[in-house]
Amino acid sequence: MNITMIEAAAQRISGHIQRTPLLNAPLLDQIAGRRIFVKAESLQVTGSFKARGGWAAVSALPAGTKGVIAMSSGNHAQGVARAAKGHGIAAVILMPKDAPQVKMDNTRAWGAEVVLYDRATEDRDAIAQEIAQSRAYALIPPYDHPEVIAGQGTLGLEIAADAQAAGIEQAQVLVPCGGGGLSSGVALALAARAPDLRLRTVEPEGFDDMARSLAAGERLRNPRLSGSVCDAILTPTPGQMTFPILREHAGPGLVVSDAQALQAVALAFRHLRLVLEPGGAVALAAALFAKDLTADVICIASGGNVAEEVFRQALDQRP
Amino acid sequence: MNITMIEAAAQRISGHIQRTPLLNAPLLDQIAGRRIFVKAESLQVTGSFKARGGWAAVSALPAGTKGVIAMSSGNHAQGVARAAKGHGIAAVILMPKDAPQVKMDNTRAWGAEVVLYDRATEDRDAIAQEIAQSRAYALIPPYDHPEVIAGQGTLGLEIAADAQAAGIEQAQVLVPCGGGGLSSGVALALAARAPDLRLRTVEPEGFDDMARSLAAGERLRNPRLSGSVCDAILTPTPGQMTFPILREHAGPGLVVSDAQALQAVALAFRHLRLVLEPGGAVALAAALFAKDLTADVICIASGGNVAEEVFRQALDQRP
Repeated sequence: MNITMIEAAAQRISGHIQRTPLLNAPLLDQIAGRRIFVKAESLQVTGSFKARGGWAAVSALPAGTKGVIAMSSGNHAQGVARAAKGHGIAAVILMPKDAPQVKMDNTRAWGAEVVLYDRATEDRDAIAQEIAQSRAYALIPPYDHPEVIAGQGTLGLEIAADAQAAGIEQAQVLVPCGGGGLSSGVALALAARAPDLRLRTVEPEGFDDMARSLAAGERLRNPRLSGSVCDAILTPTPGQMTFPILREHAGPGLVVSDAQALQAVALAFRHLRLVLEPGGAVALAAALFAKDLTADVICIASGGNVAEEVFRQALDQRP
Repeated sequence: MNITMIEAAAQRISGHIQRTPLLNAPLLDQIAGRRIFVKAESLQVTGSFKARGGWAAVSALPAGTKGVIAMSSGNHAQGVARAAKGHGIAAVILMPKDAPQVKMDNTRAWGAEVVLYDRATEDRDAIAQEIAQSRAYALIPPYDHPEVIAGQGTLGLEIAADAQAAGIEQAQVLVPCGGGGLSSGVALALAARAPDLRLRTVEPEGFDDMARSLAAGERLRNPRLSGSVCDAILTPTPGQMTFPILREHAGPGLVVSDAQALQAVALAFRHLRLVLEPGGAVALAAALFAKDLTADVICIASGGNVAEEVFRQALDQRP
């Protein structure tokens, strides 16, 4: 993995993804006591940054590939489904039965075949391998894949350019973190193109495998895989490829509560006019509420595919 | 009024306003049966396009001006208040007592002094003139002012550039219309820089003074001034300056119901992850539901300063 792969991915996805704005709201700055800039990747096509990695990976497949298969609770699903449709090949998406309905609907709307499984009783990897082999489809993993990481890393190139345009010289860049695909790609891009922007991962309380792994220097697991409203970023353990990159290039991981994530959703609605999903709002939550941050913060609002009832729940929860 | 003034305004506001993205969602295209592109001006600083005209007007004031006064139910208020603060001068904003609380709060957050009046019993213009004269402040009208129109027209320059970048050659450009400041500025910019993009105004049912005036060839009045959820764009009659521009450069006006505006708010939430206020969503509503549109449509989502209870009402209203 290196910056050349990220720049090549940026070339391939150009014209197929949205360049997203870097937003600021003085009232949020007041709440946080520091300047906060929000990279609104919730406005990305498919509603999350996963459109980048999906397109980067599918566009790198050998000519003649007939189809792809991906496992995802929703955002990676839509990213891969859209990329497959854009390249005229088939897509099968393996989703847990309890994934938000809006994500299932949108994945099907991109023309993908959705196969459901039970998180508790079925072996996702075995089902995926079986379909991949029987149909000769290419498997696109959600994060542990060089072209996926390179695709997500294109967001880091944009942040480097946005920060320069906004006159931000030094900042912490907070990134919602599941398996680490987005974080590792962005960290690599920043290390090469904006070394004064230092990345820190953000995770939900109880699912802070990356923060603990970074502190321990080895990959640790989460005790469970469900039970947070931040469904988009619940993963068992840091990726084999992503972890070494983050160990080298990221600062200590941050952790926020579900309540803080929901409050960030409400504040983004009110002051940025953005629709975020809780998992996509954890970096903003850390920017607003974490104690050990200094100076300017850039946070990625990584996704906006929120179930309506969860959004209402966020609005109900007043400080 | 001419394109040179708009381009000069674009120079002055550059770096002080947000360049907003042009978004698309395939599921909205399916609903409408045509391609819809949304210029997300709800992401503009202060939450609406009014930040453009406010900055353009204040930056054009003579040196030594001590303060400004503006009359507004909310969005123009915030645009002028922010511009005054950015130029280090005072701002008084005259707002109707029934303006949304969120708009009053945000106007005060920009450091402006808010003076409330009763729409039914008090003479807004007389109060404004009195304050302007006694304090020697400059009055910044909401739309009938060349620098305000030029400032809003900068949005037309962006749309011309965005359309070219997206490969859109011919389109109807739908614009939420109150007094016509935004519409006339954008119409002038498009006529000069993208003549194949034709502007049409969009208004709420019962407040369609511009549509009726364009059809009649003379300025007609609305029978009433309140009673629509689209509070941002309820004005008594087309502007003296804006109407002749639109008579020359705009197509027939479109009208949408309050229910359609609320439905557009809900669909923008769901498919574009945007927070819109109903008045800011009327162009999207027309893009989705109007019968006499053909081919591609670009619509301006002009504002996102929505009261929380109105937003919930929009989500409740399912087709």
